Amino acid sequence: MSDSRDAVNVTLDPDSTPASMARQLAGLHPADIAAALDRLDPETTARVLGELDTDTAADVIIHLEEHALEDVLDILGPPEIADITTELDSDDAADVVGVLDLDKQAEVLSKLEPDERREVEELLKYTDESAGGIMASELVYVNQDATVENAIEMVRAAADEVEEIHNVYVTDKAGRLTGVLPLRALVLARHGAKVADVMNPDVVSVSTEMDQEVVADVFRKYDLVAVPVVDPTGKLVGRITVDDIIDVIHEEADQDFSLMAGTSEEEIHEDSALRVSRIRLPWLVIGALGGLASATVMSLFHISLEKVLALAFFVPVITAMGGNVGLQTSTIIVRSMRSEHGLVEEGGSRLMREWRIALVNALILGVAVLLIVGFWLSDVALAAIVGGSLATVILVAATLGTVMPFALRRVGVDPAVAQGPFVTTLNDIVGILVYLGLASAFIDRLG
Amino acid sequence: MSDSRDAVNVTLDPDSTPASMARQLAGLHPADIAAALDRLDPETTARVLGELDTDTAADVIIHLEEHALEDVLDILGPPEIADITTELDSDDAADVVGVLDLDKQAEVLSKLEPDERREVEELLKYTDESAGGIMASELVYVNQDATVENAIEMVRAAADEVEEIHNVYVTDKAGRLTGVLPLRALVLARHGAKVADVMNPDVVSVSTEMDQEVVADVFRKYDLVAVPVVDPTGKLVGRITVDDIIDVIHEEADQDFSLMAGTSEEEIHEDSALRVSRIRLPWLVIGALGGLASATVMSLFHISLEKVLALAFFVPVITAMGGNVGLQTSTIIVRSMRSEHGLVEEGGSRLMREWRIALVNALILGVAVLLIVGFWLSDVALAAIVGGSLATVILVAATLGTVMPFALRRVGVDPAVAQGPFVTTLNDIVGILVYLGLASAFIDRLG
Repeated sequence: MSDSRDAVNVTLDPDSTPASMARQLAGLHPADIAAALDRLDPETTARVLGELDTDTAADVIIHLEEHALEDVLDILGPPEIADITTELDSDDAADVVGVLDLDKQAEVLSKLEPDERREVEELLKYTDESAGGIMASELVYVNQDATVENAIEMVRAAADEVEEIHNVYVTDKAGRLTGVLPLRALVLARHGAKVADVMNPDVVSVSTEMDQEVVADVFRKYDLVAVPVVDPTGKLVGRITVDDIIDVIHEEADQDFSLMAGTSEEEIHEDSALRVSRIRLPWLVIGALGGLASATVMSLFHISLEKVLALAFFVPVITAMGGNVGLQTSTIIVRSMRSEHGLVEEGGSRLMREWRIALVNALILGVAVLLIVGFWLSDVALAAIVGGSLATVILVAATLGTVMPFALRRVGVDPAVAQGPFVTTLNDIVGILVYLGLASAFIDRLG
Repeated sequence: MSDSRDAVNVTLDPDSTPASMARQLAGLHPADIAAALDRLDPETTARVLGELDTDTAADVIIHLEEHALEDVLDILGPPEIADITTELDSDDAADVVGVLDLDKQAEVLSKLEPDERREVEELLKYTDESAGGIMASELVYVNQDATVENAIEMVRAAADEVEEIHNVYVTDKAGRLTGVLPLRALVLARHGAKVADVMNPDVVSVSTEMDQEVVADVFRKYDLVAVPVVDPTGKLVGRITVDDIIDVIHEEADQDFSLMAGTSEEEIHEDSALRVSRIRLPWLVIGALGGLASATVMSLFHISLEKVLALAFFVPVITAMGGNVGLQTSTIIVRSMRSEHGLVEEGGSRLMREWRIALVNALILGVAVLLIVGFWLSDVALAAIVGGSLATVILVAATLGTVMPFALRRVGVDPAVAQGPFVTTLNDIVGILVYLGLASAFIDRLG
C-alpha cells in the first residue's frame, strides 16, 4: 500500500514495444494505466490495450479522457470494441457505442449477446443529459415479500456483474420501486427477517427524463451515493452512482466557464492551431463586429470629438466600467439561477436589488471620476459629463446584466451566454452611445 | 414514496407559530426541512429548531445554507449548540464549532463530553481546506488478524454513531492502515474467514495535509464513495465521504467564477446594497483606474489624434479584442492547470501553442478589419495601421493571458485571478499603447 495512490504516475518510454509497456503497467489501478496512456498517441494506446486482458482493457478505456477515447475507438475494429463493451457496465457500454458512427455502431451491436444488445439499445434511446442517459441497467433488486437471505443471495448472484453495490432496491410484483435496503441493514438484519420489515420505504428516486443537473442537485441535497431511476409508471429501470454525478458536475461547470470565456473546453486537448482558432474565432468576430459598431457610433459624434478631443480619452473608462459591471451582474444572476434551479424569483425583484447596488457604485465611482478628471483637466463641465455618463453606464450595464440572462432563458438559450463576450460587446456600444450622446447634448458648455 | 423527492417543497406561513411550523415539517427529510427554513428569518429558524427534537434539529442544521447557519448560530445559546453538536458527526461538529467566535467556542466545548471535545478540538487543528479539515473521525475499523464476524460486530457497534458505512478499514497493531473491506465483501464472506484473507490490500488513502482539491481529484480518478485519511506515520485517523467532496467541488468552482467576474459568491445571499457594493467596488476601482490610465495614454498621443481623429474611433475595437483574446487564453491556461493539478507543462510550450493560435486569429482578423476599414474610410494607410495594430494586440493579449497565470502561481496567488478584470484592464492599456504608438510612427502616411 502506498501512502497515497494519487502519487502513482507512470511515464512510458514511447520507443518501447506495446507488449513491454503493457508489462510495465500490469497491476496498476485502471485509472493510473489510463493516465499513462492519455499521454501516448492513439495508435500506441490501441496497441497497448490489445496487449492487456480484455477485462483490464475495458476498465482502462472508460478512464481515458474523452478525446483519447474517441481517437482510440476510431482505430479499434468492431470485434475488439464488442469484446470490450461486453465487459463494461451498461452505462459505460452505451457511452462507448454512442460515440461510434452509425455503421460501426450497428456492427458492434450485432456482435453483442442479445441481452446486452437490448440493454445498450434501450439506454441509447435516452437523451445524453437526462437521468436515463447516464443511468446503468445493472442493479440489485428484490421483491418486498422476500427474506433478507433472498436479498443476500441476490447480492451474491450480482456481485460479478454489478461493480459497486451500495443498496438493494425493493420492488412490488409489478416492478415498481417501493423501498431500499442499504447493505448495512443487510449486514445487521436478523436471520429470516422479511425485506418489507427492514427496508426503508422513504426512498429518494429520480425519473428517466429528469435533467442530469437536477439529478446532481438531488444527490447533493440528500447526500446520496446512488439513486434508483424509475420510468413514468414508477417501474425501477436503472440506477445512477455518484461517480457519474461528479463527472456531471465537472462537465456543467466546464461548460459555464467556456461560455464565459468565449471558447470551448474541448480545445484543451486540441493541438492544431487551426482547429482551436475555429473554436475561438466566432466569439472574436462578435467582439470585432461590436468594436466596429462602436467605431461607427464614435464617427457619428465626430463633430463633438473634433471640438473636444478629450472626450475620446475617456471612452476606455466607459467601456471598461460597462464591461465589469455587466459581468459582475450577469454572473451573480446566472449563478443564483444555477444554485436554485429555476426557483429563483423572476426578473423584477432581482432587477430592484441590482439597481440598488448599481446606484451605490454609480454614485461612488461617478463622483470619484468627476473629481479626478476635474482636477486633472480643470474642466468642470467635462468632468461632470464623464462622471455622469459613467454613473449612467453603470446603471445601464447592471440592467443589461440582469435582463439578458432572463431573456436568454426565456428563448431557450443557456443564460450563461450572458456572461460571455456577447453582453460585454453590447455594453461597449450602449455605453459609448450614452456617453457621447450626453456629451453632445452639453457640448456648448465644454472647452 | 413520491416519484421524486426533489419535488418536496414546503412553504411555511411566516405568521404561524414556530410550534405549528415544526408540526408542518415533521417527517420530512432534514434537507427538505432545511430548504424550507432557509427562506425564513434567523430568529424564526432558531425558534423552529428549538421545537424539533435535538436529533432532527442537528440533521437539519447541517443542511442549512452557510449564511443561514451562521445567522442561526449567532442566536442560539451555547447549551443549545452543545446539545446539537453532540448529535453531529465529528466533521460537522467541528464545522459548527469552527464558525463560532472564540468565547462562544470555548463555552460550547466545555459543555461537551470529554471524548467528543477531544475529537472536535483535534479536527479544529487542521486547516480548513485540507483533508484533515474535511474528514470525520467516525469510521469502522478492525484489526487485520480479526475474523469477518468480528468485523460485522464492529459494524453493528458503530451503526448508531456512524451515519453511512461503505467500508470497514483494516489496520495493523500500530493502527496503520493496511487494507479495506467493502461491505459487499462482508455480506458475501464465508463464516470464520480471516479479515486479512478477504480484505483488499490496495486501498487508496489520502494524508491529512493534502489539499481538498487534490482529494477531490483522487475521488474522481478512482470513483470512490469514501476515502480513509492517514497521518504522516500512516496511522488511520479519519475518513472523508463523497457528499463532502461534492461540496468541495462546488465551492472551488464557485470561487473560480467569482474571481473571473470580480465579485464573491457570498453576495448572493446578501441583501444590503451597501455590503454588496463593498464586495464589488474593489474590482470596479481597478477597472476605473485602468480606464484613467488608458485616458492618460491617449492624452499622450493627442497630437496624432488631433491630426487624424478617426484613429480614436478604433480604440474600442482594440480594447475589445485584447480583452476577449486575453480572457480566452487565460481561461484555457487556468482550466488546464486545474485539470492537471500542477502537472501542466511549464509556460514555455504553452506559450508556443498560444502564439500559434493567436497568429492564426491575428492574421484572419487583422486582414478582415483592414479590408473593412479600407473600404469604409478609403484610407489604405489608416486601414493598415488599424489592422496591423489589431493583429499585434491579439499576440500581446495572448502572451499576457498565458504568462500571467504562471506568474501569479509562482508568487502564490490563485491563477484564476488572471481571468478577472485585472488582466482585462492591463490588456486595455497595453493595447492602446501599441495601437497609438504604431499609428504615431506612421502618422505622416495618414490623412
